[in-house]
Amino acid sequence: MKLYIVGFGSGNRKSITLEAETAVRNSALIVGYSVYVQILKNWFPEKEYAFTGMRQEKERVILALQEAIHRNVSLVCSGDAELYGMAGLALELSENYPDTEIEIISGVTAAFSGGALLGAPLTHDFAVISLSDLLTPAEKIRKRLTASAEADFVIVLYNPSSRTRADYLQKACDILLKFRSPETVCGIARNIGRDEESYRILSLAELRNTSVDMFTTVFIGNSETKIINGRMVTPRGYRNV
Amino acid sequence: MKLYIVGFGSGNRKSITLEAETAVRNSALIVGYSVYVQILKNWFPEKEYAFTGMRQEKERVILALQEAIHRNVSLVCSGDAELYGMAGLALELSENYPDTEIEIISGVTAAFSGGALLGAPLTHDFAVISLSDLLTPAEKIRKRLTASAEADFVIVLYNPSSRTRADYLQKACDILLKFRSPETVCGIARNIGRDEESYRILSLAELRNTSVDMFTTVFIGNSETKIINGRMVTPRGYRNV
Repeated sequence: MKLYIVGFGSGNRKSITLEAETAVRNSALIVGYSVYVQILKNWFPEKEYAFTGMRQEKERVILALQEAIHRNVSLVCSGDAELYGMAGLALELSENYPDTEIEIISGVTAAFSGGALLGAPLTHDFAVISLSDLLTPAEKIRKRLTASAEADFVIVLYNPSSRTRADYLQKACDILLKFRSPETVCGIARNIGRDEESYRILSLAELRNTSVDMFTTVFIGNSETKIINGRMVTPRGYRNV
Repeated sequence: MKLYIVGFGSGNRKSITLEAETAVRNSALIVGYSVYVQILKNWFPEKEYAFTGMRQEKERVILALQEAIHRNVSLVCSGDAELYGMAGLALELSENYPDTEIEIISGVTAAFSGGALLGAPLTHDFAVISLSDLLTPAEKIRKRLTASAEADFVIVLYNPSSRTRADYLQKACDILLKFRSPETVCGIARNIGRDEESYRILSLAELRNTSVDMFTTVFIGNSETKIINGRMVTPRGYRNV
């Protein structure tokens, strides 16, 4: 049968694509991380669900692949299906399930839904970096922070903090401050698309001394990013063309 | 009244979000680049449309802002509203239209819709770079290519070519080849979501000698990206956790 790997966008019902909506409706079973399954249950209460907990990614994908042997399944991811999502692992593990057709369905990731909330920080070349060193060596993360700061990318940080990594954002800012002005315009977006959604625009120096949690996405502007009417905007140069 | 800056996703009707669909339906006028207006007319034939041509971005935004004084308007962008789109310019120029409320509505950009077509290249940290030097100094583009190649980002190239920039992709590959193996897994996606949609997976050495057009998005894998069942996949390390 068919396994859809579905990015359902932010926590806001409206941010899902028509394609993702159709995939969920065509599936007999919806599989996901427990928190995401709770969200989808509110949107599609008539469906059957199964879930696994945090860090149970491999078990989750195998569960979805097993079920997809005899019925259509949607494996759901918040934001996009690929980015820090399940699509890569599903394609890797699918080698053992040659009769299952896998379709990846993109969704709007937090870089874009959070960007729209803040204004328009991502108008131009940008880099996305996860600060979680669970799956990536810390040295590689530092190298990516350095390279993207030096090359004046707008930078989006995912997983900026957790209980065991309380000072990671501060350390990342210290690397960025070697190359970027403390006045660089930054933004944080929290609980994007959910009831408690909030955002704040602040300088890189202020960001360094700000505590964020794991529900937050962090935006660091490039050298041209500015504040216009309280929104974070990276100009693209059209005005001068 | 209200001005929506709407990313409508790829050329495929299904890739639009519910939110973008609602914004278009709530608008009395749809404004966009002529090619995009043609796409939207097929989807929403009952609407009134206005368009400007290529490089008429400022005129397009001012037209939308003027019309939004007395009615709701959607300014539509393919992919996302921010990324190489109109959201930044609209916020900049909106300073002269204090009574108009501007809402940015994100869409799925080609990095993600093209990624899903190829497999799952964007599972992890990545950088997006436009090769167009119309609005960005060529030196800055080279610096960004160098930095992202050196830091082992997955790289997505927008605007890889045009009639006047036929050899830009070749030059970019020459920079990448200083840091990355010629065997690096790459992908190209063309006309994403449209009738003539196609993709190809190839090595960085092959990509260097491949001609692409302006309807193509180019993906360069990181050092771990591989081909699984004919699809381009960047593993995230879950299998080894």
